[in-house]
Amino acid sequence: MKRSLLTLFTLSFTLVFAALAPAQTDDPLPSWHEGASKQAITQFVKNVSTAGGPGFVPPAQRIAVFDNDGTLWAEKPMYFQLAFALDRIKVLAPMHPEWKNKQPFKAVLEGDLNTVLTGGEHALLKLIMATHAGNTTEEFSQIVKDWLATAKHPRIGRPYTDMVYQPMLELLTYLRTNGFKTYIVSGGGIEFMRPWTERVYGIPPEQVIGSSIKTKFELRDGKPVLVRLPEINFIDDKAGKPVGINQHIGRRPLAAFGNSDGDLQMLQWTAAGSGERFCLYVHHTDADREWAYDRNSSIGRLDQGLDEAQTRGWTVVDMKRDWKRIFPFERR
Amino acid sequence: MKRSLLTLFTLSFTLVFAALAPAQTDDPLPSWHEGASKQAITQFVKNVSTAGGPGFVPPAQRIAVFDNDGTLWAEKPMYFQLAFALDRIKVLAPMHPEWKNKQPFKAVLEGDLNTVLTGGEHALLKLIMATHAGNTTEEFSQIVKDWLATAKHPRIGRPYTDMVYQPMLELLTYLRTNGFKTYIVSGGGIEFMRPWTERVYGIPPEQVIGSSIKTKFELRDGKPVLVRLPEINFIDDKAGKPVGINQHIGRRPLAAFGNSDGDLQMLQWTAAGSGERFCLYVHHTDADREWAYDRNSSIGRLDQGLDEAQTRGWTVVDMKRDWKRIFPFERR
Repeated sequence: MKRSLLTLFTLSFTLVFAALAPAQTDDPLPSWHEGASKQAITQFVKNVSTAGGPGFVPPAQRIAVFDNDGTLWAEKPMYFQLAFALDRIKVLAPMHPEWKNKQPFKAVLEGDLNTVLTGGEHALLKLIMATHAGNTTEEFSQIVKDWLATAKHPRIGRPYTDMVYQPMLELLTYLRTNGFKTYIVSGGGIEFMRPWTERVYGIPPEQVIGSSIKTKFELRDGKPVLVRLPEINFIDDKAGKPVGINQHIGRRPLAAFGNSDGDLQMLQWTAAGSGERFCLYVHHTDADREWAYDRNSSIGRLDQGLDEAQTRGWTVVDMKRDWKRIFPFERR
Repeated sequence: MKRSLLTLFTLSFTLVFAALAPAQTDDPLPSWHEGASKQAITQFVKNVSTAGGPGFVPPAQRIAVFDNDGTLWAEKPMYFQLAFALDRIKVLAPMHPEWKNKQPFKAVLEGDLNTVLTGGEHALLKLIMATHAGNTTEEFSQIVKDWLATAKHPRIGRPYTDMVYQPMLELLTYLRTNGFKTYIVSGGGIEFMRPWTERVYGIPPEQVIGSSIKTKFELRDGKPVLVRLPEINFIDDKAGKPVGINQHIGRRPLAAFGNSDGDLQMLQWTAAGSGERFCLYVHHTDADREWAYDRNSSIGRLDQGLDEAQTRGWTVVDMKRDWKRIFPFERR
């Protein structure tokens, strides 16, 4: 009797402690090849999370910020949000007969992407406003979810939310396991990302920072709604990223992850903090498994950032060499 | 031997479980008199946090938003941030000799608050820009901390951060103990609040939403800074509150707490969510221990909100009757 009681207590005790103790897993980053990049990441995490160590940082200050397009998911052949906008133009076209003769809508409806893109930012802004504004925040969230449920990447033929980088998913989990709060800081639309980032990345809406259009509070038949207006509120790109981080988080990140010159100021802002900081660029070097591009790409250009990373000793991930797997759906 | 081992395990087991289990404290709201307000709060928390119950809400969605001025700390005889601005004008005056002959600065330097206030919003905006912009975010944070370390409330003679409501501190803790994430959603300046809200309320910077001026990223001698510009970015008041909540949190709150008509849209937005929601107004009814004001007050006016609370059955706290203690420094 006493013996079985002892066994019971020992078992409970072990179970409870197993639940409390950090998981004694194998490799937390199984899709990363052994090498300098993986070593730099794990060393940094060890330095800031080892209690009593010289680099220790309290968990509340362990903020990690991630760019999205090209850092957490792919961005070729075009930003996925642009693909959403183009699809949306086609859905809305029956209600806008005038679009048949009006650029850039005409080009979109004719599938002439080159003409759309030669219209530059002005044309893109028109497309964004026509497809992202004029509804309520709840309606827009549903539109994004519905699109993601059916849209397929033009080359890979899979849902866009499958086009996420397996090594980065592992990195997000690894950081959170070690007390980090993970944020997205993207040039993409904040309301375009929030409907799916929790499911796909484990990042809740309140930890998503992005570009936005203005919204307006209204009572419609006594029911409050937020209406999305065709007016830019904030562009969360380049020098806007530290501004967005300060506005939303109010703390300087401990670690920053990006892939383009649009992330450079975010990395500079992070690196300039006192004590241990970590900056990493994902360098797209794998034309077979993904895409290879840097200094001359119109999307995700990495030029000045690559130079600065080398000068400052930031970690630069070579996707081809550093990553065993790129997408979760690849056969191992 | 076996017996002592058993005792050891039993003890460990008990200690571990005691640490894991919800605290079996006495009253979590000791400064609240028993009555309808307290009853409504505890019933709501029980409803949404009882696993398996009809009102259960997962912890990630337990968002509670609090106005600050007049809800978490006092706001008389003037908003404390205005007191900061007036003090700051005096500090900066030697560098601005022209202020001696220029309104509203002249009136501030002469201690003529009436003239300042008759200048209306335009005059206040001038004072805010002269005292809140032109520095970096880090400099401004330090200026706020330095001011709070020495400034005293004109009537009570204590630091402004002592002028917080003890029952609301208990409520914040009670909600967090039950899985809620507590946010401030204030018309006050976001960067004026963040330097002290964690220490005083247990609310970290990333859970503070407020009004803001624009900031600009700059490299100064190679060092990145965010410079505060004399330009309004966002006014987090009235219809701006749901906009700010959506921008920062991206989820609708489960509970909202305010004290004035400036909080009405925040409460409406919260109440309009599906399932169980909770809205509460703090009604300033105690002229002896604090201040008594509502429909006719220029600061913290509660008029339309009081009517709507009655119509909709929101909880209205009568400070005089519902609160045993108002400030933490009161003798019990």
